[in-house]
Amino acid sequence: MKSNSVQVGIIGASGYSGEELVRLLLAHPHAELAAVTSRQYAGQTLGQIFPKFANHPRARSLRFSKPESELLAKQTEVVFLALPHGVAAEFARPLLDLGCQVVDLSADFRLKNPEVYKEFYSHEHPAPELLARAVYGLPEIYREAIKEATLIASPGCYPTSILLPVLPLLRAGLIKPSGIIADSLSGVSGAGRKAEMDYLFVECNESVRPYGVTLHRHVSESEQELTRAAGTEVMVQFTPHLVPINRGIVTTLYLAPENHFANTAEMFTLTGKINACYEAAYGNEPFVRLLDGKALPDTKNVAGTNVIEIAWRLDGRTGRLIVMSALDNLVKGASGQAVQSMNILCGFPERAGLG
Amino acid sequence: MKSNSVQVGIIGASGYSGEELVRLLLAHPHAELAAVTSRQYAGQTLGQIFPKFANHPRARSLRFSKPESELLAKQTEVVFLALPHGVAAEFARPLLDLGCQVVDLSADFRLKNPEVYKEFYSHEHPAPELLARAVYGLPEIYREAIKEATLIASPGCYPTSILLPVLPLLRAGLIKPSGIIADSLSGVSGAGRKAEMDYLFVECNESVRPYGVTLHRHVSESEQELTRAAGTEVMVQFTPHLVPINRGIVTTLYLAPENHFANTAEMFTLTGKINACYEAAYGNEPFVRLLDGKALPDTKNVAGTNVIEIAWRLDGRTGRLIVMSALDNLVKGASGQAVQSMNILCGFPERAGLG
Amino acid sequence: MKSNSVQVGIIGASGYSGEELVRLLLAHPHAELAAVTSRQYAGQTLGQIFPKFANHPRARSLRFSKPESELLAKQTEVVFLALPHGVAAEFARPLLDLGCQVVDLSADFRLKNPEVYKEFYSHEHPAPELLARAVYGLPEIYREAIKEATLIASPGCYPTSILLPVLPLLRAGLIKPSGIIADSLSGVSGAGRKAEMDYLFVECNESVRPYGVTLHRHVSESEQELTRAAGTEVMVQFTPHLVPINRGIVTTLYLAPENHFANTAEMFTLTGKINACYEAAYGNEPFVRLLDGKALPDTKNVAGTNVIEIAWRLDGRTGRLIVMSALDNLVKGASGQAVQSMNILCGFPERAGLG
Amino acid sequence: MKSNSVQVGIIGASGYSGEELVRLLLAHPHAELAAVTSRQYAGQTLGQIFPKFANHPRARSLRFSKPESELLAKQTEVVFLALPHGVAAEFARPLLDLGCQVVDLSADFRLKNPEVYKEFYSHEHPAPELLARAVYGLPEIYREAIKEATLIASPGCYPTSILLPVLPLLRAGLIKPSGIIADSLSGVSGAGRKAEMDYLFVECNESVRPYGVTLHRHVSESEQELTRAAGTEVMVQFTPHLVPINRGIVTTLYLAPENHFANTAEMFTLTGKINACYEAAYGNEPFVRLLDGKALPDTKNVAGTNVIEIAWRLDGRTGRLIVMSALDNLVKGASGQAVQSMNILCGFPERAGLG
Repeated sequence: MKSNSVQVGIIGASGYSGEELVRLLLAHPHAELAAVTSRQYAGQTLGQIFPKFANHPRARSLRFSKPESELLAKQTEVVFLALPHGVAAEFARPLLDLGCQVVDLSADFRLKNPEVYKEFYSHEHPAPELLARAVYGLPEIYREAIKEATLIASPGCYPTSILLPVLPLLRAGLIKPSGIIADSLSGVSGAGRKAEMDYLFVECNESVRPYGVTLHRHVSESEQELTRAAGTEVMVQFTPHLVPINRGIVTTLYLAPENHFANTAEMFTLTGKINACYEAAYGNEPFVRLLDGKALPDTKNVAGTNVIEIAWRLDGRTGRLIVMSALDNLVKGASGQAVQSMNILCGFPERAGLG
Repeated sequence: MKSNSVQVGIIGASGYSGEELVRLLLAHPHAELAAVTSRQYAGQTLGQIFPKFANHPRARSLRFSKPESELLAKQTEVVFLALPHGVAAEFARPLLDLGCQVVDLSADFRLKNPEVYKEFYSHEHPAPELLARAVYGLPEIYREAIKEATLIASPGCYPTSILLPVLPLLRAGLIKPSGIIADSLSGVSGAGRKAEMDYLFVECNESVRPYGVTLHRHVSESEQELTRAAGTEVMVQFTPHLVPINRGIVTTLYLAPENHFANTAEMFTLTGKINACYEAAYGNEPFVRLLDGKALPDTKNVAGTNVIEIAWRLDGRTGRLIVMSALDNLVKGASGQAVQSMNILCGFPERAGLG
Repeated sequence: MKSNSVQVGIIGASGYSGEELVRLLLAHPHAELAAVTSRQYAGQTLGQIFPKFANHPRARSLRFSKPESELLAKQTEVVFLALPHGVAAEFARPLLDLGCQVVDLSADFRLKNPEVYKEFYSHEHPAPELLARAVYGLPEIYREAIKEATLIASPGCYPTSILLPVLPLLRAGLIKPSGIIADSLSGVSGAGRKAEMDYLFVECNESVRPYGVTLHRHVSESEQELTRAAGTEVMVQFTPHLVPINRGIVTTLYLAPENHFANTAEMFTLTGKINACYEAAYGNEPFVRLLDGKALPDTKNVAGTNVIEIAWRLDGRTGRLIVMSALDNLVKGASGQAVQSMNILCGFPERAGLG
Repeated sequence: MKSNSVQVGIIGASGYSGEELVRLLLAHPHAELAAVTSRQYAGQTLGQIFPKFANHPRARSLRFSKPESELLAKQTEVVFLALPHGVAAEFARPLLDLGCQVVDLSADFRLKNPEVYKEFYSHEHPAPELLARAVYGLPEIYREAIKEATLIASPGCYPTSILLPVLPLLRAGLIKPSGIIADSLSGVSGAGRKAEMDYLFVECNESVRPYGVTLHRHVSESEQELTRAAGTEVMVQFTPHLVPINRGIVTTLYLAPENHFANTAEMFTLTGKINACYEAAYGNEPFVRLLDGKALPDTKNVAGTNVIEIAWRLDGRTGRLIVMSALDNLVKGASGQAVQSMNILCGFPERAGLG
């Protein structure tokens, strides 16, 4: 057994973010993967279901079990929920009662207001009494709260790609809280491991397409967090697109500087302020890469890593500020960020197991 | 020889849009491909350079020649220029003088103002005296002028994806001319057949990335045409992204309705107006597909065709109008549109050779 | 209505080869698409299900119906069956009885021996009495028989990629009938439009993998036809692999020349014989492209076309003959070849509707 | 500085295998990346050229230098050569003279016979006097020799995919040394980071194609090692194909069992022998994954790892043994294997830095 380590479990380990949690936790220096659950694969070893892990000794011995809270609570101290929304909340309650710390990758505990949840997810919130207790697991913003948390609501992939670039600007009053547009491109793993026609190779390859226009659920948590930072209600115009890559999100944000810049000197001044703002927010963050020079975000430079890349440009013609981000939807957008939260929660070095 | 046919030539037939012109013109019922030029491949047959055409009898016999205007003028009546900007204009002049009709796929004759050309293309316009004579070859907008033209400036791929969705709305006064944002995704053939690191398979596959942010040249012709339609100066915020497909552009446009809609009834009224506007503009157009129901544009549904797909949504929360288009950058965005113009110019059925 | 045309129907028009038949038949100068069936989509128009065809007037009006033989027989003269094996045979019988000509794209009528069918397809043949009547629809080999046929068993994609390169060599006695190895790579559309995990984008992209090793069903029809040509029993070692492209098969064949070549002169002589053999077999075939010079088959040069590319090399070191072919599994490997057979059957030009 | 660590350098760090060495060595627990060279990028930091490493402190400070042997010898103890063949040998000599240990990823020291080198690489061997000293760096076969080596010739990607599956069978006398066929599929990174038309995204995407048929250089080292194991001259029929993935090789091998199996019982016995043979050879190897059950090799399960997957099938109909392997051409096929050799050479745990 690893020294100074925590016993961890994953409920719903057979989807893409569950599989990614397995990858990260098998290699984690301070975590022991003690339990993985999957109704579908119960009884089989990790190595049988995921040949790619079969060389890892733990993967050869650890078998999927059915998700039973009491057993899990005996085996583990931290449990990751990689389940669909609605289902996750039902598992969270008994695990919390039994003393586990819970990191939930679903949307169930991200929204503070159960009414907003109902509006966006079309069903009653399954455990509204836990909402107050949940900490939104964006470490760059809520690191202190995460340290004390027992229930972490790990952010969505799109919201992470929106919030990390926008929050510092909004807090610093550098941009207007109105008129924010987020245009996002996501790889196909974002749709989950689901046997649906729309996600067949032949339907996605050589295809680029918008989807969920004006309606996407992830808008709700982005708006909640932006509103909190701005101190005034913020709405986001969000358009996701599906692109034929496995992993990765690029988000392009169209923002309005709070103060109009009328000439080159003012543009230069604003440039300095934005640089200073990002540097103050993220200069020491291990997983935020502020690009400089001519570099622009590229999913291939973040794939498989917990890094978010951020770059920005002021447009002297239109007066707008364009901010772009790139992250791996399964890592910084899901499982890596969840492990980052676990590291903070458990007092491990924040980079542990994250490259 | 085909009856009722025109002799055509292609200067610069070895790039992607040149190759696409070859494909379309070999199969065209009213065109005889009489000459193809390429300095690099001079002396070789079309079939040797492009094995995919080798079964076509014409491709087995027709050899690339060096581009010589006098010879071309003897052999052909219509000449397509598939050349880089700057170079195209130099070829256009002698061909026009010798009596050819010229369809230019470069940017050289798209801008009416040589000063704007210089600003965006960083060199003096090579043939400013021809600008007045050039017709912007967007058939859905300038069909009548194309009929009489001798020099056609075939539009760029991005501008086509922006202008066809926006122009009818602007002309009808349904949207504000200010604040237009165009966020575009393009397949890699848009970069041309150039042996550059950035476009290697390994650098593009699994990569999604913005490029040319705030600076892209195609903005200039989009703004020229939108300004013309609006009767007031229009600026476009344009952000292109490179996505790993061979062919295709998706453009997502963020527009502001001229009249704010305050409730469902007003939204319903505006919906009717937009539908009527598009129906009036494109209901009978052979190459514009107005999507209805839940359908959204998808590059795979237009690849290899001359069709542009258009769909739109009003966002009841933000008040914005989101319009999306998809086209094949090599067909409706380049060679297909050029052939469509040739059909009009020569009095052929507009669909001839275009599926 | 088109002049000199035949009324055609497609049963099972919602899969990939059905969709490809739709594409080809909508554009066919001598065919009228009179009926398309699909249980799943009954009542909807072609254009609603396949937006890519929505600009075609026929696709806007023609609705999917449920497959009913009597109605189909009234509406059509030629019926294409794009159905799974086992099911196809059941539809063939009543249609033939009602006087239709049937082109079956399934495996049901390819094998002459119902025992072999049972061995490879694991169920009794549903209509053994029709087997004698079926013509194997490989036009380059059975053109005369196709002219007189009422029931055509259109070949499989892999067998086409094996048979066209090997049959002439075997007939000419240039290769040994023993020891034939066929190593094939297929794009994902070969698996059909099925919502299965294995064919999800994320599972196929960046993946290359063998499958069905030693067991593939397509071996049986390849061996039947090779045995017929050789006059002695032929076995084929066949290994298919799945590769991340939409369309295309490349087959690499390892063959033993009948006569060992001991030196350069003998190698030169054999080279001449092989060239002559292929030239005699395919020199005038519209859809076989014999590559010369350094060219090698490439799926991108046949995608969307009815062409098969063939190239070969003698290996002076090992004494083997390596023959390679490339075709589009949905066109020459399925729907295009079926249309080619229909053209022969109906007395249309063989290239009609096939580019 | 890391404890118990070695100072390492990379000459030619800007190509794909150089970049992969950077990735592995930056994360290696016992290696300090002390020098990287690139004529092209001299003066720039690792992080500037490869943004993906820019979060690593070492990558922010380490600058590319020009390759100068004396300086390198002062800074480093182990030097990796990631250079084209011919060039590598010229760098090896002075570095060895100055006391460095050299791990060469090129082909320069793989062939024992300079005549064979000349035949396959078309130029005189640049340093024949070093050949006797070089150890072929296939750890599973030459682990003991690697421990004592000063010059390691790290194997090619294709040969690794051929040799690891075949060598144990040949040594155990289970297969005939004649008639071996290796049919391989490689991702595009195998072609190196070269700005050539053939490797552009548009030319590779949706393309599958054989290349270098009967001629590939990698045959020579495969044959050398197989001949050594068999004790009799072995020839390999090798056909590489390019497939549109970034990383990965799948090799399918057609082999003849030494003893014909006439019935199920004999097939069962042979199955047991093959299993035992592989188990004895690789049962304890950290980077060889022997697949069991129905599993077959898949590049996506080895991408980014140093693992080779191996599976096999006996064909009861043809009597052949089909063995298949999959590896990442940049890791087990190049840089990972080189690091594995370094680990052995330096006495580090063999898995160190390799996941």
